[in-house]
Amino acid sequence: MSTLAIATAREVFDLLRDDLVAIEQELGRDAASSVSTITEIAEYLREGGGKRIRPSLLLLASHMLGFSGPNAIRLGAVVEMVHTATLVHDDIIDGADTRRGRPSANTTWGNEKCVLAGDWLYMQAFKVALEEKNLKVLDLLIGLTQQMVEGELLQIQKLGKAVSEAEYYDLIFRKTACLFSTSMRLGAVLAGATDQQEASVGVYGRAVGLAFQIVDDVLDLTATEEVLGKPVASDLREGKATLAVIHSFDHGTAAERQAIQRVLDDRSFENVSRQQIKDILIRNGSVTYAMSVADRYAEQSRQALKSMPDSDFKRALLWVPDFVVAREK
Amino acid sequence: MSTLAIATAREVFDLLRDDLVAIEQELGRDAASSVSTITEIAEYLREGGGKRIRPSLLLLASHMLGFSGPNAIRLGAVVEMVHTATLVHDDIIDGADTRRGRPSANTTWGNEKCVLAGDWLYMQAFKVALEEKNLKVLDLLIGLTQQMVEGELLQIQKLGKAVSEAEYYDLIFRKTACLFSTSMRLGAVLAGATDQQEASVGVYGRAVGLAFQIVDDVLDLTATEEVLGKPVASDLREGKATLAVIHSFDHGTAAERQAIQRVLDDRSFENVSRQQIKDILIRNGSVTYAMSVADRYAEQSRQALKSMPDSDFKRALLWVPDFVVAREK
Repeated sequence: MSTLAIATAREVFDLLRDDLVAIEQELGRDAASSVSTITEIAEYLREGGGKRIRPSLLLLASHMLGFSGPNAIRLGAVVEMVHTATLVHDDIIDGADTRRGRPSANTTWGNEKCVLAGDWLYMQAFKVALEEKNLKVLDLLIGLTQQMVEGELLQIQKLGKAVSEAEYYDLIFRKTACLFSTSMRLGAVLAGATDQQEASVGVYGRAVGLAFQIVDDVLDLTATEEVLGKPVASDLREGKATLAVIHSFDHGTAAERQAIQRVLDDRSFENVSRQQIKDILIRNGSVTYAMSVADRYAEQSRQALKSMPDSDFKRALLWVPDFVVAREK
Repeated sequence: MSTLAIATAREVFDLLRDDLVAIEQELGRDAASSVSTITEIAEYLREGGGKRIRPSLLLLASHMLGFSGPNAIRLGAVVEMVHTATLVHDDIIDGADTRRGRPSANTTWGNEKCVLAGDWLYMQAFKVALEEKNLKVLDLLIGLTQQMVEGELLQIQKLGKAVSEAEYYDLIFRKTACLFSTSMRLGAVLAGATDQQEASVGVYGRAVGLAFQIVDDVLDLTATEEVLGKPVASDLREGKATLAVIHSFDHGTAAERQAIQRVLDDRSFENVSRQQIKDILIRNGSVTYAMSVADRYAEQSRQALKSMPDSDFKRALLWVPDFVVAREK
């Protein structure tokens, strides 16, 4: 493969194929509990799939820095379990009916059991991570989880409010970018990387994560209901102001600000329609603005890898931000 | 103090007075988060008090084995935080209105925030424990927490069923005795005790915990509503069969078995009265039986300390099972 070739989704998948198969096996082993309800829920969540982005980042980082081995498989499964645990508790909190096109776990088993299943998944993730016998690994994971839990609570506190841009970045860092960054750093820790290298891949993960969530939030406003699998502008209807909306709120007219605040207050499009909101965003160039910020973070992530040794794994990582920003769902 | 003197509650409290003050301070520090809702909930829980039994066990164990220092304070706070986190999630699951005579956290802040506050407390406990930089400590705590979470789910699975005695002991081990045992073992780990000593104090903690929960469950059947702060036989009405009830179920007549099963099915005393259940328990000597089991565990706990060096701390630990079994609320 030429060092100039830009990776494609296919190439990246090929690079990680064996690892990803091993991760599925590890996740299967880790889903087993002596309590049948837990095994059922954990199996259901595992089978629900997901893109396994976080383990893939961890694997690419560790390979790029020269490490391959079962530890990366194990920790890849760990970051996926932490991710799943947060989803289980978030779905309870949001009263979500579906997840990944299937009934959410809370719909199937009820909130009570799912609170405990989420707890169990956190503990299982830490238990598997303990096998590394590396305090740094646990420190990263526990700090991460606390940041994510605090982020979810911050989001509840700020529901219905037009938050500032700075508050928005803090929220999406905690919600998404923090785990992307930690996954990259864990890959570096496994590879015995220098502090400098670990910091750099951490910056990469943070920037990719921010770009990923910004685009996710833009798609919620611009994609079709068919693509989204849920009504357009659901975030706003739930009282969550995302980057494009914040931009219009900050730069629009008083009337536009009022219209946005009305939807945040009403938690519905009864008094202000989806189309009116879309028109406001277009008039203020807010979607374009949000995408430009995502582009900036994508560029920042590429810059962060500048001093890394060249390899197919590095090229795959350089491809990820392009993919994240260009995706349409 | 004479080596023969039997400790009293006063003496035990005097032995630990400074440590317990320090633990309250540590808990105060540990309750602080950058997210105001978390600090509020954590503070509310901390102020709610509780008997601090688990930190006291940890402190007595570490002192008995020759260790004093800030680490014991820190880990004492940790086991109390783990305990509190389980209570927060359990109260959500049980839909509990009150806890320690005040509105439960879920009544005050709602289930959504309390799911996250519980998560945060678990993570905070692990984070503080990480400061020990001791993998054994984390291993004990994470294993413990998973056992407790599984126990709560097992209890949900078994609601409304007349479980066997063996299932009952497994449930109360997970619910109570496991954390008592871990608190003792953590005290031993801090003191650099031998594996043999750690195992012995672990047996002590398990036995005291089982006795504690058996007596708790008996009091639910025999104390007055005034003392309990809730209606008598609440466990049974919630579908939970405890030791005395299980004994009558296993040894009573077919009609008595039916009456018990009826309450477990109905989750009420509509068709079978509280008095009828009490009569059944008396006829079968079931309360006496349950208390005799508690006595046996109390004795087992004292035996477990046989080879420990004599001290005021050991005498305090020898007093605890007596106190646990003799208490009336």
